[in-house]
Amino acid sequence: MRVALCQIDTTVGDFDGNVQRIVAAATRALAAGARLAVFPELAVCGYPAEDLLLRRAFLAAHDRALRDLAHRVPAGVDVLVGCLEANEDAECTGGRALHNAVARVSEGRCRIVARKSLLPTYDVFDESRYFEPCTQPEQNVFDVDGMKVGAVVCEDGWNDEQFFGRRVYAVDPVERVVAAGAQLVVNLSASPWARGRQSFRTRMVMAAAKRHGVPMVYVNQVGGDVELQFDGGSIACTADGIAAQPVAFAEHVEVVDTDEPWTGRLTEPPLVAMQHAACVQGIRAYVRKFGFEKVVLGLSGGIDSALVATLAVDALGADHVTGIAMPSHYSSEHSLVDARALADNLGIAFHVLPIATLQDAFAATLEPVFVGTTPGVAEENVQSRARGVLLMAFANKHGALLLTTGNKSECAVGYCTLYGDTNGALAPIADLWKTEVWAMSRWLNRDGERIPVRSIEKPPSAELRPDQLDTDSLPDYERLDPVLRCLVEDELSVAATAERTGMATDEVARLFRLVQNSEWKRYQYPPTLRLTDRCWRGRRMPVSHRYRER
Amino acid sequence: MRVALCQIDTTVGDFDGNVQRIVAAATRALAAGARLAVFPELAVCGYPAEDLLLRRAFLAAHDRALRDLAHRVPAGVDVLVGCLEANEDAECTGGRALHNAVARVSEGRCRIVARKSLLPTYDVFDESRYFEPCTQPEQNVFDVDGMKVGAVVCEDGWNDEQFFGRRVYAVDPVERVVAAGAQLVVNLSASPWARGRQSFRTRMVMAAAKRHGVPMVYVNQVGGDVELQFDGGSIACTADGIAAQPVAFAEHVEVVDTDEPWTGRLTEPPLVAMQHAACVQGIRAYVRKFGFEKVVLGLSGGIDSALVATLAVDALGADHVTGIAMPSHYSSEHSLVDARALADNLGIAFHVLPIATLQDAFAATLEPVFVGTTPGVAEENVQSRARGVLLMAFANKHGALLLTTGNKSECAVGYCTLYGDTNGALAPIADLWKTEVWAMSRWLNRDGERIPVRSIEKPPSAELRPDQLDTDSLPDYERLDPVLRCLVEDELSVAATAERTGMATDEVARLFRLVQNSEWKRYQYPPTLRLTDRCWRGRRMPVSHRYRER
Repeated sequence: MRVALCQIDTTVGDFDGNVQRIVAAATRALAAGARLAVFPELAVCGYPAEDLLLRRAFLAAHDRALRDLAHRVPAGVDVLVGCLEANEDAECTGGRALHNAVARVSEGRCRIVARKSLLPTYDVFDESRYFEPCTQPEQNVFDVDGMKVGAVVCEDGWNDEQFFGRRVYAVDPVERVVAAGAQLVVNLSASPWARGRQSFRTRMVMAAAKRHGVPMVYVNQVGGDVELQFDGGSIACTADGIAAQPVAFAEHVEVVDTDEPWTGRLTEPPLVAMQHAACVQGIRAYVRKFGFEKVVLGLSGGIDSALVATLAVDALGADHVTGIAMPSHYSSEHSLVDARALADNLGIAFHVLPIATLQDAFAATLEPVFVGTTPGVAEENVQSRARGVLLMAFANKHGALLLTTGNKSECAVGYCTLYGDTNGALAPIADLWKTEVWAMSRWLNRDGERIPVRSIEKPPSAELRPDQLDTDSLPDYERLDPVLRCLVEDELSVAATAERTGMATDEVARLFRLVQNSEWKRYQYPPTLRLTDRCWRGRRMPVSHRYRER
Repeated sequence: MRVALCQIDTTVGDFDGNVQRIVAAATRALAAGARLAVFPELAVCGYPAEDLLLRRAFLAAHDRALRDLAHRVPAGVDVLVGCLEANEDAECTGGRALHNAVARVSEGRCRIVARKSLLPTYDVFDESRYFEPCTQPEQNVFDVDGMKVGAVVCEDGWNDEQFFGRRVYAVDPVERVVAAGAQLVVNLSASPWARGRQSFRTRMVMAAAKRHGVPMVYVNQVGGDVELQFDGGSIACTADGIAAQPVAFAEHVEVVDTDEPWTGRLTEPPLVAMQHAACVQGIRAYVRKFGFEKVVLGLSGGIDSALVATLAVDALGADHVTGIAMPSHYSSEHSLVDARALADNLGIAFHVLPIATLQDAFAATLEPVFVGTTPGVAEENVQSRARGVLLMAFANKHGALLLTTGNKSECAVGYCTLYGDTNGALAPIADLWKTEVWAMSRWLNRDGERIPVRSIEKPPSAELRPDQLDTDSLPDYERLDPVLRCLVEDELSVAATAERTGMATDEVARLFRLVQNSEWKRYQYPPTLRLTDRCWRGRRMPVSHRYRER
C-alpha cells in the first residue's frame, strides 16, 4: 500500500486554512498514487489550542470544519487526520469532555478510528486538562484494502519499556495495536523540536519498528506556534531501514510503499543548524502568522543582539529588520562601531538614538525622591528602561514587533532589567545558553563575516556603569553554563551540581539563589522560542517561595 | 472524640516554618483536649509547590521535615497532615512519582493513612502533572480510639453527583470511605478563595454530611501564596447543623466534639467584605512572606489607584505605602488634587514627579525616527512608560515593591500599556471588574471618606490625550462588565453573550476581538491576586492564534 506522509503547517483556530492545507496535501498524495494520507495530530484545529478547547463555539467550528473536509477530500485517498471528538460518556460517568482522536476521512464520510491513550502532562503540555484518555488502544486498528492499520497519537509512541529502560505509563498503545493485528502502525504527532529531540524521536520510532516487526509511519506537525517549534521530521521505517528521510522545518509530502523494502540509512543534521532553523522558523511564524511583517531590536554592539538581528534577517529578509543603537554616557566607543558594522553587514535599517538626554531628564525628574542617595542599580535600570521605551515607541509607531535579545544564561540568573532589555513580543534566543550563542554566531560566519568578529570575541558587558563586565558578578560563561544546565534543565541539587561540574558548592548555591530570586522576572518575560525541553514557560516554578538549598 | 480544626498558613518550601506551625497548633489542640488534630493538604511543604516537586532535593527536605515533625508532635494528640509520598510503583508499573497523601503522626511515628484520588487539573491547578491518583479510596479509613475515620483530600470531596447534578470524575471518594465504614469524614484541603467559592464549598460539605449521615470535618489552608488566596473557611457539620463557624482569612484552631450535637446555624459574610479581605491578605502575604515591607504605586487621581492604595494601607499600614503622582501635559487639574486628597486621607507618603520634561526629552530623542508622523498611540504609550520607569526607579532605590493598579475590565480588553501602567510586582485588583472596583470603594467609605468621592464619581479616563474618556472606545462599564464576564469567565460564544446581555452582536464581536488581541499583554502581566475561578493565569489562551467568532 502506498502511504503519504503529509507533514503540514497548521495554525491554531484557522479552521478554513487548515482544511485547505489538508485538502491540498491529500490531493498531492493522491496524484502520487497514495491510498492513505497521514496527517499530524489535531491538524483540523491546530495544536496547541489550549483553553480555546473550553469554548463550545470553538468545538462547533471544529465540527463544521471536519464536515467540510469530508466533502472536499478527493475520492481515492483515505485521509487520517488528528481531530477532536466529544467524549459522549463524560456526562454520565465523569471525565473530560473531549478525546484527542483520529478521523478517517474518505468518500465524503468521516469516522473516528483511534483515540489517544497517553496524555502528556509535563513541561509545556497540559493534555490531561482537556482530554479523556482512551483505555482500549487495541481498538485503534482498522482495515484499509485488506491491510490492518493501527493508529496511535504522538505520546502513545513514547512508552516503550525496552527503549526507555523503564515504563512511564501503565499501557503501551503501540504494543496493543500490534497485538491486535496491526500490520502497519501510523503515529499522528504534534511533537515540538528541542535540543536532541529529533534524533531521539527517530531512534525511538526505529526501535519500535524493529521490536514489533512492523513498518512504522510517523507524521509530525511542522511550523511555529508562538513558542513551540515543530520540526516535522516525519519518518517511515522498518527494522531494515528507512523509506523517507526526515525533512526538518519545512512542509513536505512524501509517499512510501509498504510493498517495497525500506533500506535507506539515516543522516542527521548538525545541532547548530537545527537550532538556527528553529529560530528562523520561530521568528517568521510569529511575525507572519499573526499579521506583521517587520521587526525592530536594539543593537548594543554585543553578541546577543547581533545574533538576533541575523536570525531576523534570515527569517524575514533585511528589508524587514530595523536595528537601533542607543548609546549612553557609559557605552564604549566600540559598541556603536560594532552595531553599525553589523547593520552594514546585514544590510538592515539602522538608527542611532543616544539616551544621554533621557538619562539627564530622568535624573532631574527623580531628584526629589533620589536626593542624598548613591547611584546604583536604580540608575542602571533607568538606562535599560529608557531604551525599552524608545524601542517600543519605534515598534508602536512603525507597526513592527520588538524582539528581545536576552539569552538563557542571563535569563536564568536574572541578569536583565525587567521592562528594559526584556521588553519585546518574542525572545528568540532566551532558550540558548550564552556558549551556544557564541557557537551559532561562529557558525553563521562560516562563509564570511556576518556578525562582526569583535562582537563575538569581546568580553560581554551590559555597559550600565563604567568598565562593567558580566564577569564582575558571574563566572565565565564556559564555567557558568554547565552549572546552570544542571540546576535549571536537570533540576539537580546544589550538591549534585557541584559534584558534577567541579564548581565550589558555595558558588553553586549562590547561583541557585540567583535563579530562584529571579523567578519574578521570568514570570513577565516575553514568549520565548522553545529550543530545549526545559524552556521557561514549561518550567513552572512558584514566583516566590522560601525553599533554599544550603 | 474531640477533633481540632487546625486552619494554618503555610509557606511553600519553608519546611522549618511549616513544621513549627503544625507543632504549635497541635500543642494548642492538645491543650484544648483534642484527640485528633486535622491540618490542611500538603501542609508540610506548602501548596502549590509546582515544579519544586520535580527536584529530588526538595523531596528529601520534605521527608526530613516529616521525620522532624514526628519527633515534635506532643504525645496524646494524633496529627493528620497533608504530605508527599513517593509512589513506589512508579518505576515498575509507570505513573507519576508522587502521591498527594495524608500522614497520621503520633507517638513519634508517621504513617500514610490516605491518598488523594481526584487530582484537579483545570484553572490554576496542575495536579496531574505531579501526582499519581489513588485508585482505592476505600482504603483511606483508619481507627482512632475505636472510631472509624475516613480521610479525603480536597478535590476528593468535589464529586458528589447529587450535589453537582452530574458526575465530574468516575469515583466519589467520600461515598467510598463511608461505604467502608467511616463514622467521621475529614477533608484536608488547600482550596483557594474565589467569588462565591466559600459559600459554595460550605454548602457542599453540609450536603455530604446530610447525604451520608456522618459528621464532616473540613480543614482548609489559609493565607496568601502569591496569586492564590486561601481563605480557610474550615467547618465541621452534620445533617443537623454546624459545630464550627467558618473563619475566613485568619489562622484559627477550633475543637469540636463528635459526641455532642452539632446544631449551629451558618452566617455568611457579604461578598465585598470577603473580596477586601482577600486583597488585603494577598498584598500583605506577597510583601511580607518574601522579605519586603514597603510598596509604591502611581496615583492618577482615578479610582483604580485609589482603591489599590487603600488596600495597601489596610494590608501594611500607611507608613509602608508611598503614592506618586506623575502629571503630564494632558492631566486634568483635578487629577493631582484627587491624588493628593487620597494621600492625605490615608496618611501615606506622597510625591509629585511631573513628566513634562521626560515627554519632551523622549520627543526630542525619537525625532529622527518619528519625523513626519502624526502623534498617536506611540506618543500616548511613551507617557505611560515614562511613568513606569519612574515608579520602578523609586521601587529599586527604596526597596519597595511596585503595585499595579489595573482592573479586570481594562486587562480583559487590553486597555493598558505594557511596560507602562502594567509594571509591577503584584496586581491586586486585576481580577476585579471595574463595577466591582466602584462597589468596593464605596464600601470602604462606609464610615467616612477614605477614597475621595470625586475619584469614585468622575468618568474614567487614561488622560493620555486631551479630553480622553474610557467611553470614547468602550461601552459604559455597567454594560461592558456583564459582557466581559460572559466572554472571559463563562467562555460563552459571541452569539450567546449577545443573547444573554442584550448587546448587539457586532459590538460583542468587537469586544471579543479586543480580548483575543490582548493576550500578548496578559502573557507579560504581573502576578494577579486571584479573586475568581477565571483569573488570568488560570485562563490559558494561546498568545496568538487565528480563531475568530463571526
